[in-house]
Amino acid sequence: MAVYTKVSASEISEFMAGYDEGEIVSFKGIAEGVENSNYILQTNRASYILTLYEKRVNPDDLPFFLGLMDHLVHKGTNCAEPIRDRQGTILKTLCDRPAALISFLPGLSVNRPGPDHCYQLGQEMARMHRAASDFKISRKNALSVDGWQSLVSQCECRADEVEAGLKDLLHDEMAYLKANWPAGLPEGIIHADLFPDNVFFMGGELSGLIDYYFACNDILAYDVAICINAWCFEKDGSFNITKASRLLRGYVGERAMTGDEMNAMSVLCRGAAFRFLLSRLYDWLNQVEGALVQVKDPAEYINKLKFHRAVKKPSEYGLDI
Amino acid sequence: MAVYTKVSASEISEFMAGYDEGEIVSFKGIAEGVENSNYILQTNRASYILTLYEKRVNPDDLPFFLGLMDHLVHKGTNCAEPIRDRQGTILKTLCDRPAALISFLPGLSVNRPGPDHCYQLGQEMARMHRAASDFKISRKNALSVDGWQSLVSQCECRADEVEAGLKDLLHDEMAYLKANWPAGLPEGIIHADLFPDNVFFMGGELSGLIDYYFACNDILAYDVAICINAWCFEKDGSFNITKASRLLRGYVGERAMTGDEMNAMSVLCRGAAFRFLLSRLYDWLNQVEGALVQVKDPAEYINKLKFHRAVKKPSEYGLDI
Repeated sequence: MAVYTKVSASEISEFMAGYDEGEIVSFKGIAEGVENSNYILQTNRASYILTLYEKRVNPDDLPFFLGLMDHLVHKGTNCAEPIRDRQGTILKTLCDRPAALISFLPGLSVNRPGPDHCYQLGQEMARMHRAASDFKISRKNALSVDGWQSLVSQCECRADEVEAGLKDLLHDEMAYLKANWPAGLPEGIIHADLFPDNVFFMGGELSGLIDYYFACNDILAYDVAICINAWCFEKDGSFNITKASRLLRGYVGERAMTGDEMNAMSVLCRGAAFRFLLSRLYDWLNQVEGALVQVKDPAEYINKLKFHRAVKKPSEYGLDI
Repeated sequence: MAVYTKVSASEISEFMAGYDEGEIVSFKGIAEGVENSNYILQTNRASYILTLYEKRVNPDDLPFFLGLMDHLVHKGTNCAEPIRDRQGTILKTLCDRPAALISFLPGLSVNRPGPDHCYQLGQEMARMHRAASDFKISRKNALSVDGWQSLVSQCECRADEVEAGLKDLLHDEMAYLKANWPAGLPEGIIHADLFPDNVFFMGGELSGLIDYYFACNDILAYDVAICINAWCFEKDGSFNITKASRLLRGYVGERAMTGDEMNAMSVLCRGAAFRFLLSRLYDWLNQVEGALVQVKDPAEYINKLKFHRAVKKPSEYGLDI
């Protein structure tokens, strides 16, 4: 959590002169976003988030991310809206970085989601999948099977520093996923990072999904599998089938799942757990001294992966719907 | 810049239930305040800053700081207002830390103040000095002559690592200030940290002073001297007499200065430069690996101190008023 690029009062004033969004009332860096610099900006008209894209975001992907958000807003989804300047431009430059002004989405992320939060998340995710179905740009998921293989190669020799036997687990799982990753399931645009941090609620109602900077084209049900991992385990590591069942029920109420999708849920959940295990392991093994970002413990996802490896049938996720 | 204590959605909801300030709409950690954790909180009624006081603030000082802000608001000063809960309490506890909800003061701090900003600062500082004159609590300035001596003792043996000859300069200056620090000048409550970061402007008009967490009782003109150091030097180190003259003119328009105060301006400026030189030197020599706070270069204040040492008469500050 950090602001990597400091934008001065004169720089933001000059930048905002290009927009028709009112007079600046306040401007403060916010301690959110592990990859970009974010500011909350208030004018006499509304609140906004100003994002400066730092080096971990590929500038070539920004038309996809911002275009997707714009598309979703115009389809009526609860998504923050990229604001156009007087020339109609969304993607701008500020302090030598790509930058965009985004509407402020109200709401708070929940730290301990309950079954009803999961239900609403399922609903909203399915609506988003439907709304994105006619978006014209596509983006490959760099963190799918091929990307996992590359992370395994970079981490394997030091994996056992984190937990004895982890190197073998990585190899086994990689081989299994390569051989069994499902083909032919419905694909489309997925959020790919719908952790509780990225879902806002207000007064108990879901108010929106944020942070589309991992969005990509992939198996739609893989997005559901990521959420089962991120929302349906308790802090003590135990799986909460009630939450998973509610999440799935919310999802299928808005977008029917095929039998193949349901039958693939275990392998998709293994893949999702593996993906976050690998990225956390990589960050863990490559910690930068004095970095501003707090590294997350990969052990949480080792345990989740082991849970999914033991799953025998979809009903163990509450998939009796 | 950092949020040291992470407050969850349920913790802030429970906390805000004690206030009559509306429903929470958003809550985000802000990357400001080197000593405390700060959040911007919006309700359906207004915006606020929530501050959790971290270990560098002495909890015994909080009734002074918050009481002073409350006093200044009720005297009509442009100051953020500490908000009372339903029981009338300002100083509360959140996540095991002292905490206070403060009204949101609009405005932006200027990175390159001009002469008119300096004039308005002088005016507002003098009004604040007047408004605080009947505040009942007092607080000793821990960073006055005695405090400087202690910092000199802690830094002297390594001072020459920063600049050759700095150790001798510290000794000379400490001896001079001890012998010449003025007595009998008008005293009262000073802000003691009125750097451009802590002064907000909106549409060219000063909208308020923030961050009273160094406020204390001391010589009033010493606050002016701190501002001359903080506002009237250019980035290249040169002194801008126009800005100083405007700052002083703004000040004396609201609170007349005695001849003794004017004659003491050089020694007060030396003291102010020495105080910030010492605290920056201390932080520089005691950098914590991986700390979230960026340490400021003490060299800037070595140069400012040298400038003031060469000043022969008040008119060199534009004090021909």
